[in-house]
Amino acid sequence: MERIYEDSDLYIEWERADIPWVKIFTREPFKELTECPDALRSRLWRVYETVEKAMIDYFRPDKINMASFGNYVPRVHIHVMARFENDTHFPEPMWGKKQRESRLDLPDFEGFEKLLLRRLKTL
Amino acid sequence: MERIYEDSDLYIEWERADIPWVKIFTREPFKELTECPDALRSRLWRVYETVEKAMIDYFRPDKINMASFGNYVPRVHIHVMARFENDTHFPEPMWGKKQRESRLDLPDFEGFEKLLLRRLKTL
Repeated sequence: MERIYEDSDLYIEWERADIPWVKIFTREPFKELTECPDALRSRLWRVYETVEKAMIDYFRPDKINMASFGNYVPRVHIHVMARFENDTHFPEPMWGKKQRESRLDLPDFEGFEKLLLRRLKTL
Repeated sequence: MERIYEDSDLYIEWERADIPWVKIFTREPFKELTECPDALRSRLWRVYETVEKAMIDYFRPDKINMASFGNYVPRVHIHVMARFENDTHFPEPMWGKKQRESRLDLPDFEGFEKLLLRRLKTL
């Protein structure tokens, strides 16, 4: 898991996957979103929105998917995925049944990291 | 799909499932969360938090799961699920591999609706 970003509240990591897929963690662990202090949860939503918008602008996906489960590790983290009609699982969620073999032709992930960091800095 | 709640911005429906599972829709359709106007998206998060908290207080689940996909119907809606260690799919997401047969012994769903409506009214 490669870390993209961190500050005093949150950090962001890549999920190893064929699609662009990151996870946003609160630095202090909380089991549920509503257990986070209000200010932290507001910031989490704002950072989520920044990640979503950067993915849309950079990767031009067919759809953004987001999820917060934490059943294996009961600690708040939000998955953000850029989905494409020809990816391995579309239109199923990434946790559903694989639909096909797929090799996506995407812009390089480092460019996305740069865009995201620039936007998070001015958030 | 039974409707639980509606106002000028949002509506909430039950998903047919063995676990407590609702979906929050924006009344006006938007493809992505970041395409919703800021005020509507803020309200969506607040209503999500109210649903999550009501599920925790009423059903005492082992974990809350939330997701926003919209790959089949590209229209913003948030899934909120109360998960239990002995439900059909735990610890997998509800879209993952079924783990077991299960019959949960839960408080009646009508009581949850009443609690949720009371809280949404004072939101």
